Amino acid sequence: MKTKLNANDAQTLKRLRELADDVTAAAMKRRDPSIDVPARSLSNVKYNKSKRFIEMGKNTNRRQLFNLSQAKSFMQTMLVASGSSQLIEQGKTTSIRGLYYMLKHTIEGTKEETFEDQDESDPIIEDMEVLSGSLREELHLYAKQAGVMIGNIVLIDSGDEIDCSRMGSGGYGVPSIAEPEVIEFKKCTAKFILHVEKDTVWKRFNEDKFWQKHNCILTHGGGQPPRGVRRMLYRLHNELKLPVYCLLDNDPWGYYIYSVIKQGSINLAYESQRMAIPDAKFLGLRSMDFKRCELSDSVKISLNDTDRKRAHQIANYPWFAHKKEWQKEIKLLLENGFKMEVESLISKDISYVTEQYTPARLKEKDWLD
Amino acid sequence: MKTKLNANDAQTLKRLRELADDVTAAAMKRRDPSIDVPARSLSNVKYNKSKRFIEMGKNTNRRQLFNLSQAKSFMQTMLVASGSSQLIEQGKTTSIRGLYYMLKHTIEGTKEETFEDQDESDPIIEDMEVLSGSLREELHLYAKQAGVMIGNIVLIDSGDEIDCSRMGSGGYGVPSIAEPEVIEFKKCTAKFILHVEKDTVWKRFNEDKFWQKHNCILTHGGGQPPRGVRRMLYRLHNELKLPVYCLLDNDPWGYYIYSVIKQGSINLAYESQRMAIPDAKFLGLRSMDFKRCELSDSVKISLNDTDRKRAHQIANYPWFAHKKEWQKEIKLLLENGFKMEVESLISKDISYVTEQYTPARLKEKDWLD
Repeated sequence: MKTKLNANDAQTLKRLRELADDVTAAAMKRRDPSIDVPARSLSNVKYNKSKRFIEMGKNTNRRQLFNLSQAKSFMQTMLVASGSSQLIEQGKTTSIRGLYYMLKHTIEGTKEETFEDQDESDPIIEDMEVLSGSLREELHLYAKQAGVMIGNIVLIDSGDEIDCSRMGSGGYGVPSIAEPEVIEFKKCTAKFILHVEKDTVWKRFNEDKFWQKHNCILTHGGGQPPRGVRRMLYRLHNELKLPVYCLLDNDPWGYYIYSVIKQGSINLAYESQRMAIPDAKFLGLRSMDFKRCELSDSVKISLNDTDRKRAHQIANYPWFAHKKEWQKEIKLLLENGFKMEVESLISKDISYVTEQYTPARLKEKDWLD
Repeated sequence: MKTKLNANDAQTLKRLRELADDVTAAAMKRRDPSIDVPARSLSNVKYNKSKRFIEMGKNTNRRQLFNLSQAKSFMQTMLVASGSSQLIEQGKTTSIRGLYYMLKHTIEGTKEETFEDQDESDPIIEDMEVLSGSLREELHLYAKQAGVMIGNIVLIDSGDEIDCSRMGSGGYGVPSIAEPEVIEFKKCTAKFILHVEKDTVWKRFNEDKFWQKHNCILTHGGGQPPRGVRRMLYRLHNELKLPVYCLLDNDPWGYYIYSVIKQGSINLAYESQRMAIPDAKFLGLRSMDFKRCELSDSVKISLNDTDRKRAHQIANYPWFAHKKEWQKEIKLLLENGFKMEVESLISKDISYVTEQYTPARLKEKDWLD
């Protein structure tokens, strides 16, 4: 739909072209064309204590055209850069699977495919993100759309004005690309964001008009929030200065979701600087809630071996390792021997979670950081 | 939020109370309390040729209180009826997992739980649907929310006016309960519905403003559409007389999604009469598209054993068994030896699917029925 490039697209395209220019320049000088790809290995990932999020180190791996073991990935890197340039020039976007299909073909004169399957193109897209310093959304690629929001905010999405306080029971589907070129915040009177894990919990809060009573924005990410939801939360938090409170299950998966929202994901550390929200708070469920809220045995779900293993791993994350409260929280989970879901609070009362649990935590500023 | 019951809620509540009255009446007369639950077994499911959807037969199973093997499920049935009544009276809804937590407790004086896990409550909810002739949404229960819509229709959702032609890139999240009490259609100028399988394909169509150019409503169901989306499609089709065209992958899963939209699901046959859309059309992808659209080998994904087995099963469904075109379609899939995804059409051109493939099928009325 775009007729000319916006500033951000022009910038991304410039970076992609520089990459290509370096390669052709080397070739013209009869030097081996190569690119230095920042290493996306665990050993090149560090927790930055002052920025409070996960960052990539400075290690790079050289990828050469005239190297039998690297020639294919070199070619694939060039293909992804070229595909992304095409998308930007045409003002169109596609899914990462779409790009795979777009670039896949039999190499002329051979029986070799450019990409065997999507497992080969996805990591190259991640390479391209770090190489060009762009989010994949800026490369005009998107991941799954999931997650919904509602609340006291008006935004402009692709020219349409969306009043999120008038979205009925369904809510506004958070797009997979929530970049400023697509989404603009027009007016916001909400004072904070309540992010819940699942659609079912979100629906309880929406039905009880929690966001009206407490003047907030209510979001969910359908489990681990997809990139669009994380970028939306990041932008709401940073541009509109809205605190983010997370209401997640009392289990290692809930802790992990919080960890990714707060500090970024280990696999995609390079995106943390534009996705991580170090000030996000963990409102619950807490391991102590079983006693504190006088819950019945019916809420207990026994921990399995994977849960216990994951709990220990998470307790050792550098950003949790030195936090007494988090160590207590995870220790108590393991001592309890059971996990709990937010939905189980219904055993107290249908609206216990919206009328008592959450308001009490917010009022007492009772959360984990 | 509701202060008094609407007509439909009152009706559902009446049915639940009649069920309870029958039980107490029997008890008062010192007869064994029992309920006759329509059998939800495959043997009690039939394809109704004149109505053109799957229906339940008339077999029932008696569930008695004073029968050791049935006492627990009798008690569970009463609990679900009681939980649903409470929800209706309070004007609140919950997820099927929420209801499980709401009803789960240790039976006084024993160590027995009312429900061991959700696998025990879900089938009882289905029993209650057939017993009371109500959809679970009418019992104030909901399944997962997924799926998004956009297009030339204005609807009222819980009092909010939603103009689906002004929903930006994100779209309107189809609620898990799309019943007339929640969603009212206000104004619709769209002439048909295009239903696509996945969010990624939906986004391509939305970005290319297909629904504006072709004056339609564009929906997706995130794979197998959840009940909310199916009810929405059903209501749009029946109340607004909009034809439904499905654009799904060329694989047994795509055929199956179409089959469920069209004829209903075998497991939940009792809901077909309010969910099945016998006139829905299968626009593609077709097995012949590989040749017809001159696609390259890169779109091929080899069929595996499960695919082949499922393809044979689907070919034998009573509603496909006598349709020559469907037999040809499935036979060609098996002969091809590969399946294809809608997204693979991008190998022709980014917007091939929105600008050429789909418009051509619609223009030529070229679809499977």
